[in-house]
Amino acid sequence: MSKKGILFVVSGPSGCGKGTILSEILKDDRFYYSVSATTRAPRPGEQDGVNYRFITRESFEMAIKEGRMLEYTEYCGNYYGTPLDVIDQKLAEGKNVILEIEVEGAGNVKRIRPDSVLIFILPPSVKELRHRLEKRGTETADVIDRRIKKASEEIRCAAGYDYIMVNGPLDEAVADMKTIISAAEMSSAANKYKIDEVLENA
Amino acid sequence: MSKKGILFVVSGPSGCGKGTILSEILKDDRFYYSVSATTRAPRPGEQDGVNYRFITRESFEMAIKEGRMLEYTEYCGNYYGTPLDVIDQKLAEGKNVILEIEVEGAGNVKRIRPDSVLIFILPPSVKELRHRLEKRGTETADVIDRRIKKASEEIRCAAGYDYIMVNGPLDEAVADMKTIISAAEMSSAANKYKIDEVLENA
Repeated sequence: MSKKGILFVVSGPSGCGKGTILSEILKDDRFYYSVSATTRAPRPGEQDGVNYRFITRESFEMAIKEGRMLEYTEYCGNYYGTPLDVIDQKLAEGKNVILEIEVEGAGNVKRIRPDSVLIFILPPSVKELRHRLEKRGTETADVIDRRIKKASEEIRCAAGYDYIMVNGPLDEAVADMKTIISAAEMSSAANKYKIDEVLENA
Repeated sequence: MSKKGILFVVSGPSGCGKGTILSEILKDDRFYYSVSATTRAPRPGEQDGVNYRFITRESFEMAIKEGRMLEYTEYCGNYYGTPLDVIDQKLAEGKNVILEIEVEGAGNVKRIRPDSVLIFILPPSVKELRHRLEKRGTETADVIDRRIKKASEEIRCAAGYDYIMVNGPLDEAVADMKTIISAAEMSSAANKYKIDEVLENA
């Protein structure tokens, strides 16, 4: 058995800065970002295979039936999910795969793939998160209230993750995520093959 | 709730280089090295409280009875164990506590303290370990054979640890252990209190 990649699941409330941290991590080509599949129509500017893999309802339901979705959910009449095919291929190639999904999906992934590593990104405070959303200026006060409520519910789920990191200054947050990744690469789950290697020709 | 220390359990076959790595880690005063208690008599040069806490059989058995030993074992007619008192005090003060114990004791600690972090240090190979022992020149071939057999048995237990690191060059091994420690400090077990903090004044 040789070195396989590790499946990382990253969650955090909207506006917590996940995307910025991940784009730094993904500069390293040992990582592959898993693109979700959806049955919803592409919005202007969205590209197939970049923002989502846009597939038909029929294909999605077939994939569910055949066990080819690691996790999925239905939201506003559309399916969203994580196709297994590319993930397993990348992991077999030794690449670390990053899934950026919501708390419910993350829990499902952990149940099916106990060796996956769940990382929750906390905003410095919910107060600060509200401030960030207000500064963006793209949402009404009512929408911001609802998003803060949702964020608080998500944050309560952080206890079920393997790691919790706080998103402060970007360079520190990126360093923190790299530390978690390096440690995960030393987890016994990822290193059982080393035991056999070390015992060889004793 | 504020930040408590983390209990690290470090194991690895004799001659794997544990001591050298730990002495580097322990230069940082955020760490406390837990000294085992024993009922055996001190050997020439051994100091009470440094090599072991030398206590009477009576005190040791009383400590077992009163649940004041985190783990213990009897070996060649003497008790060896880890007293809880100092450990819990140091953890409460926010210090990380390091226990350097054998695989059996490590498993017992993990059962009683599931939040403890178990690190196994692998030698680069068992062949290399044999070479190191032979180079020391302090043991007969027969003793070395028995130690290699014991080491191989211990290494098979590494799969039950949280992390496995290979002891190559000292600076890399120390960096690896520091990475594991930093990641453990971001584990959700060690950071549940942060969830409440972040949710405050939402």
